[in-house]
Amino acid sequence: MLHQDRLFPTNTDERAIAKRLFETVCNLPLICPHGHTDPAWFAQNEAFANPTELLVVPDHYVLRMLVSQGIPLARFRDGEGDPQELWKLFADHYYLFRGTPTQIWLDHTFRETFGLEVRLSAATADLYYARISDCLSKDAFRPRALFDSFNIEVIATTEPANDPLTHHKDIANSDWTGRVITAYRPDSVVDPEFDGFLDNLAEFGEISGEDIGTWEGYLNAHRIRRAYFAAHGATSTDHGHPTAKTANLSRVEAEALYAVVSSGTSDAAQNEMFRAQMLTEMAGMSVEDGLVMQLHPGSHRNHNADMFEQFGRDIGFDIPQRTSYVDALKPLLDCHGMDPRLSLILFTLDESTYARELAPLAGVYPSLKLGPAWWFFDSAAGMMRYRELVTETAGFYNTVGFNDDTRALPSIPARHDVARRVDCAYLARLVATHVMAEEDAVEVAHDLAYGLAKAAYKL
Amino acid sequence: MLHQDRLFPTNTDERAIAKRLFETVCNLPLICPHGHTDPAWFAQNEAFANPTELLVVPDHYVLRMLVSQGIPLARFRDGEGDPQELWKLFADHYYLFRGTPTQIWLDHTFRETFGLEVRLSAATADLYYARISDCLSKDAFRPRALFDSFNIEVIATTEPANDPLTHHKDIANSDWTGRVITAYRPDSVVDPEFDGFLDNLAEFGEISGEDIGTWEGYLNAHRIRRAYFAAHGATSTDHGHPTAKTANLSRVEAEALYAVVSSGTSDAAQNEMFRAQMLTEMAGMSVEDGLVMQLHPGSHRNHNADMFEQFGRDIGFDIPQRTSYVDALKPLLDCHGMDPRLSLILFTLDESTYARELAPLAGVYPSLKLGPAWWFFDSAAGMMRYRELVTETAGFYNTVGFNDDTRALPSIPARHDVARRVDCAYLARLVATHVMAEEDAVEVAHDLAYGLAKAAYKL
Amino acid sequence: MLHQDRLFPTNTDERAIAKRLFETVCNLPLICPHGHTDPAWFAQNEAFANPTELLVVPDHYVLRMLVSQGIPLARFRDGEGDPQELWKLFADHYYLFRGTPTQIWLDHTFRETFGLEVRLSAATADLYYARISDCLSKDAFRPRALFDSFNIEVIATTEPANDPLTHHKDIANSDWTGRVITAYRPDSVVDPEFDGFLDNLAEFGEISGEDIGTWEGYLNAHRIRRAYFAAHGATSTDHGHPTAKTANLSRVEAEALYAVVSSGTSDAAQNEMFRAQMLTEMAGMSVEDGLVMQLHPGSHRNHNADMFEQFGRDIGFDIPQRTSYVDALKPLLDCHGMDPRLSLILFTLDESTYARELAPLAGVYPSLKLGPAWWFFDSAAGMMRYRELVTETAGFYNTVGFNDDTRALPSIPARHDVARRVDCAYLARLVATHVMAEEDAVEVAHDLAYGLAKAAYKL
Repeated sequence: MLHQDRLFPTNTDERAIAKRLFETVCNLPLICPHGHTDPAWFAQNEAFANPTELLVVPDHYVLRMLVSQGIPLARFRDGEGDPQELWKLFADHYYLFRGTPTQIWLDHTFRETFGLEVRLSAATADLYYARISDCLSKDAFRPRALFDSFNIEVIATTEPANDPLTHHKDIANSDWTGRVITAYRPDSVVDPEFDGFLDNLAEFGEISGEDIGTWEGYLNAHRIRRAYFAAHGATSTDHGHPTAKTANLSRVEAEALYAVVSSGTSDAAQNEMFRAQMLTEMAGMSVEDGLVMQLHPGSHRNHNADMFEQFGRDIGFDIPQRTSYVDALKPLLDCHGMDPRLSLILFTLDESTYARELAPLAGVYPSLKLGPAWWFFDSAAGMMRYRELVTETAGFYNTVGFNDDTRALPSIPARHDVARRVDCAYLARLVATHVMAEEDAVEVAHDLAYGLAKAAYKL
Repeated sequence: MLHQDRLFPTNTDERAIAKRLFETVCNLPLICPHGHTDPAWFAQNEAFANPTELLVVPDHYVLRMLVSQGIPLARFRDGEGDPQELWKLFADHYYLFRGTPTQIWLDHTFRETFGLEVRLSAATADLYYARISDCLSKDAFRPRALFDSFNIEVIATTEPANDPLTHHKDIANSDWTGRVITAYRPDSVVDPEFDGFLDNLAEFGEISGEDIGTWEGYLNAHRIRRAYFAAHGATSTDHGHPTAKTANLSRVEAEALYAVVSSGTSDAAQNEMFRAQMLTEMAGMSVEDGLVMQLHPGSHRNHNADMFEQFGRDIGFDIPQRTSYVDALKPLLDCHGMDPRLSLILFTLDESTYARELAPLAGVYPSLKLGPAWWFFDSAAGMMRYRELVTETAGFYNTVGFNDDTRALPSIPARHDVARRVDCAYLARLVATHVMAEEDAVEVAHDLAYGLAKAAYKL
Repeated sequence: MLHQDRLFPTNTDERAIAKRLFETVCNLPLICPHGHTDPAWFAQNEAFANPTELLVVPDHYVLRMLVSQGIPLARFRDGEGDPQELWKLFADHYYLFRGTPTQIWLDHTFRETFGLEVRLSAATADLYYARISDCLSKDAFRPRALFDSFNIEVIATTEPANDPLTHHKDIANSDWTGRVITAYRPDSVVDPEFDGFLDNLAEFGEISGEDIGTWEGYLNAHRIRRAYFAAHGATSTDHGHPTAKTANLSRVEAEALYAVVSSGTSDAAQNEMFRAQMLTEMAGMSVEDGLVMQLHPGSHRNHNADMFEQFGRDIGFDIPQRTSYVDALKPLLDCHGMDPRLSLILFTLDESTYARELAPLAGVYPSLKLGPAWWFFDSAAGMMRYRELVTETAGFYNTVGFNDDTRALPSIPARHDVARRVDCAYLARLVATHVMAEEDAVEVAHDLAYGLAKAAYKL
């Protein structure tokens, strides 16, 4: 369990190179420029409730696998059920995760964070539950202590545009020195199909003090909230759209479209056009205020209507779909693509676009960079494919290092560990096949593990 | 020729692990839950005519390669020509198959079934012809004897909805104990673009005794025929649609659509909608009767009109095309996707959907499983890509083991051998990179070679 | 720098096989059947101006990477700026090319052509500039001498339909024996969206002596120019369309469409239809005159309008896009696909089509062959993916060997070296995993390095 050479190449020479590279990066601080941890954890610093609440209930990767094998989601999400019984149920099905990143992350957490040295199974479920529960009762396992012991240099959470950022204020006002910043995620006031869009819009007007009845007022509200987020540490915005479509409407057209959208009478095509226009508007604001822009397109959210109604968002029923970037981004890029003040980081759930669209785009537009392998592809093989498909066209320096992008605090060290190992394995292959000098690989390994994320996100 | 370590990793440690795993599965019986062998072979148990009729003429993989290099298809399909001359022509061009699964399958067959120890070439063509002809004249090479010597535990053939299943009855009534079951393939009465659709429909009414003039009668005819197939061993249905589109029309809409379709006046959009609706109907019937449902979409059948007119179906002119699943399957999944009584096995000819769509869908819906690498991808590299792209999201237990899916009886052991070797090679890499314990890999290897197919197809 | 085992497998056995194979092909003459070198070089045989003009300014791979990191294209393309200063700027940023084929090609050129033994960096920029400048002043570095020393057996350039081929005539009339042939590229008179299309058409009428006011005259003009190109050595035509769409209009429809297109009043759909129809016409002419046809679809040319206006074509702003072949090619294939006199070589920038569409098509149609990995995929990993995705369905003999497709004369040996190494590495894996006998691999290696290109292009 947790072999020191895990994920390294099997060839002796390559493995030796990978290990040498890894030794130079394995202890670097963690830069976490994009993710979904809860700032309340760090603001309130309360102990986590129990192993099941910490490691199973909130983890959509875990839930979806259990559901796929016929375990009702309600078992874990109805708020009832004995946590230790649920832990046993999970342990009984732990074999389902063989070969998945979930197992790698959890085994790492079990071993490195909770000191467990036997494997999780039905037989060891109670032992696990007792050990982890015991740990959680100690101060060393409260959120701030974990943050510190994980060697996190900075972490960005992600908040919706209307979030008051209370937790971030509390953290700033506390005597704790951990750096927890926010990121501006305006989907709830940009996407007319978002739950409660019109209510969100009304609240957006109130919180910003702008008249969101007009297009100009609406845009100003964004400017005000972006500045507010930046004042609470944000260096980036984040946009979770169904597609990568952008638009560049005339002012008159945009005003007319906003009038329809903000009255709640828009149709699907108008909604898509509005999201598209807003990406270009956001890029323009990034040129003004310097916030790095992130685009996370291509997820068909809440694929199953019944499950969404019963259990809400982020429960494992988001499915990737085919995504296009070349025509889609052109309107935005025609406006701002050559502007060195813009930094737009692109993500994808459609790996066929890595080599065909994204690497060629990021490999020429000064404003574009590629985010790391995302979500379903934040895995050993997924990250290796990313490097293989991206590097020859975009090189390393149009990429931005690693994002853990997680909701699961305990998984953070494991995820960075996997990323660093895979990058070192990839570099080791280049060195062993004499494509790259080892001294260059040492530099690149450092950049991939630390430097690029810090620079790309202006941290 | 046929080295004992073929298809294993080249790294010494990985190879040793792969060999250890393979030794635990190489002698397991063959489960053949989906394929296209001819039940008449097993019912009548007649000797195969000659090497050319057995190994060349019916094999679309072989024919297409020969045609691609300018050999007219008529040479093999006009029913004339001396079989030994044709065998020589094939042997002269055997170099074309270098690096293809066809060569791997044939070499395996030549060596293991016919005991040939020299390589096939122009020089050895006559030797081959004589040796194989000699074998075919012996009882040990009749279909039932081959079935037994191949260690086949069960084989499913595939018959159209109107098939009387005479051969399956004859097999059941014989003193031979081989288990040959059927599968319900209703394309000929579901797809308005199928050859002779209206005639097929009329026959469907007669054979079922239902009034196919009404939507309800038509659906009942399916229920009756499904029950008839199940009574002859079927545990599954199979659906070969151009796309994966499903629909969920109201009863009134479906009735109206059926009226148009069954009158022969439907257009392309109505045909597609009818196929889509019928997939959802079939899923509903599977919930009722427990037949496992298979969907094989994405082949542009009979791409060349001239060749189709001259030589008919299944001659190598079917070409894969881009296929979508996420939106396409949603209507069916909204109806039945969370029902644990449904088991829908998905196949694809579009590998870009493995990681993007199919693994995420099968990794959350309890009704969905992924079929193995199919058709053009039923090959060493194709199967390895399948595992690499599917496992991290769907794990192993949302897949269903191997299908040989063949029309070529002699190729069955070779195909299972390749699948078991590739799976062991994949598992060996996980073990060698410390992602999986070897004891777990032994269990998984057994499941992939035997257990999953048996369970998924309820055999 | 430039290790003798570069790009070979890391496993000892595989590497040994790869080396043995490579030794049999590394000294074969270079067949260059498709590319974009300037025939004026060979006609005039003038010395290249300086290192920057030779190696940086014309290379879109180099320029796009520099631009992507914020260096204005104008620095290299405004015709001003001291060449040695620009060389230093390039050397300062050479680390950006780590892991890219550009670095592999340039390092090969620096070492093998210019004898440099230290690595390029800011520190060695002046040394490099002096050494390369010194070389360029010598006769041994003039174009014809490079051609000879590179061991080029034949090279095809690519000229537009209206090109007078003066340079090719001059080469033919010179006392130099190097074989430099042309290829017929009619995009400028076939694509209504090409710059200056109507003017090009007028000139096309004049140069051919045909009345391009009629459809028949226009087609005859193509026949005349094709014959003219063939008389200057052309064995092929080349077609750079945005998509692979083909059409088979009736004569009346085609005449009417040409009337609209040639009057400059066609819309986007008519332009696409005209390009589509012209591919089928060109295939028909290839059946008549035997010129091999090449189709290079799927590039979104000149993605950024500002850059195109300032700096024109071929500066790195061409981006691949999703491409379809199965339906798109059907009209052409229905006309000519089974005709053994047609040879149509297909290329792609959408790797998802290799295994799904192109290998299945080329693996059955006698008229179709697959061109090598193209443009962004003319790289070590790109070429390996090509073999992995194509071979199992199309084999080796439906592919056509290597094309360097370059505008950069000095890169030619490096590109062939990479292709030969990758092919030997691929074959070595097949041998080491006992899929192919080594004696067969020797034959295939020779065919991939030399024989197939010569045969496929009728050289």
